[in-house]
Amino acid sequence: MTDPGQTQPEGSNATAGVVTACVLIIGNEILSGRTQDTNLNHIATCLGEWGIRTTRAEVIPDDVEIIIEAVRRTREQFDYVFTTGGIGPTHDDITAECIARAFEVPLVIHPDIESRILALAAPPDVMDSRMLMARVPEGARLIDNPTGGPQGFAIGNVYVMAGIPRVMQAMLSSLEGTLHGGAVVRSRSIIAYLGESTIATALGEIQGDFPGIDIGSYPFMRGGRYGTNLIMRGTDDALLDKVYQTVWLAVRSAGVEPEVGDT
Amino acid sequence: MTDPGQTQPEGSNATAGVVTACVLIIGNEILSGRTQDTNLNHIATCLGEWGIRTTRAEVIPDDVEIIIEAVRRTREQFDYVFTTGGIGPTHDDITAECIARAFEVPLVIHPDIESRILALAAPPDVMDSRMLMARVPEGARLIDNPTGGPQGFAIGNVYVMAGIPRVMQAMLSSLEGTLHGGAVVRSRSIIAYLGESTIATALGEIQGDFPGIDIGSYPFMRGGRYGTNLIMRGTDDALLDKVYQTVWLAVRSAGVEPEVGDT
Repeated sequence: MTDPGQTQPEGSNATAGVVTACVLIIGNEILSGRTQDTNLNHIATCLGEWGIRTTRAEVIPDDVEIIIEAVRRTREQFDYVFTTGGIGPTHDDITAECIARAFEVPLVIHPDIESRILALAAPPDVMDSRMLMARVPEGARLIDNPTGGPQGFAIGNVYVMAGIPRVMQAMLSSLEGTLHGGAVVRSRSIIAYLGESTIATALGEIQGDFPGIDIGSYPFMRGGRYGTNLIMRGTDDALLDKVYQTVWLAVRSAGVEPEVGDT
Repeated sequence: MTDPGQTQPEGSNATAGVVTACVLIIGNEILSGRTQDTNLNHIATCLGEWGIRTTRAEVIPDDVEIIIEAVRRTREQFDYVFTTGGIGPTHDDITAECIARAFEVPLVIHPDIESRILALAAPPDVMDSRMLMARVPEGARLIDNPTGGPQGFAIGNVYVMAGIPRVMQAMLSSLEGTLHGGAVVRSRSIIAYLGESTIATALGEIQGDFPGIDIGSYPFMRGGRYGTNLIMRGTDDALLDKVYQTVWLAVRSAGVEPEVGDT
């Protein structure tokens, strides 16, 4: 099978050392508010550890034309695209069909998925429905499903996974070591029990002095106290340490004792 | 102040009785996986009750050009756009500036926000930083902030709210009754402890018979048992009841006793 995405991601930023991903969360149940998505958080965290930066996520409905448009557009713009949802056996599972149409290839039965499905006996009409999960776009590679269910698939730089968090997580874990990552972004965090405004000027100056580190300030309220989480992110550990120390001293200068945050 | 969005939403589907919204979640911390977003779920649920359907959500980074592009594009495509994040007093709070640029109007100090900020004494440099939160695009309307902090704002059909869930929720609640909604989508839900495939054929037929109701099937695993959540959604209560009864009987025909799900 051909595999244009495996060796050279499309729309690549890889020359700049930055490898990007877009996550497409497909599902009316997320957009209706019925279900709280947690897949984006898991995927972004995992990819980050592999040196791939999630720079966009889109939640889109179970609509053929919308899915096709989103896949076509994002696969050109990002090094990798990961989709979740819509690969089950029911009428609302339209992701495989949409991916095939986005790539302009036919849907075919993949023999490895077929044999996994056939291994579990079922009445004819149930088997017919289950066999819908064996359909992949021609030329697709399989994504293993360590839970034992039907596999996911990838075509080009688009990786198609289940929507159920436990199954998606298993599929994603099977991809470890197979993707092309860039420099890993690391983070440092300081908790400061002060209002953001108190530290804003100093933070802005530090950000100006160290453009290579991304400094974020995220206010919170905990136990009736206002505070802010100061997050520093970058690929250069030494620079990150330097900015960390500088921010630490700035918080102290603002009159409160900084605390080490989660990294 | 002029208000093109208040009377007639742009890019409107309102003639078809469907009022749509896009949620733009602005924040590197969501895309890095550090923070689990919960704002989309809250906004979608709330808007749904007001007759507004969230048909798209995008998570985008703290990047001026990306935010401007997303606002310009989505405000044309959807009746309403709601943004969360990036309206605090620090250097990474760039949302107000981006919205002003998207609408090609200057940023101005809003006197009502200014007076709220001035009411709380602070040293000059802290006050300068806090005053950044008084900046709104010229012509913007205020969104009240019942927590007592600086207000959010709206311009045209774009509603700009805080990223902190507690503050965002307060701002959104203040909009109740001010937005133009369409027919409210209601849902019914049946829990069936069977594999999706077992009911897939029947479900597909029911969906074909009742195109006015959106039938979704969401598998889960609970206490070691596979099951599926069958969700029916639509604006016509009588039709919804009919589909509910039809699906209920189909589950029973498949050999398991259906259970009433959450609606």
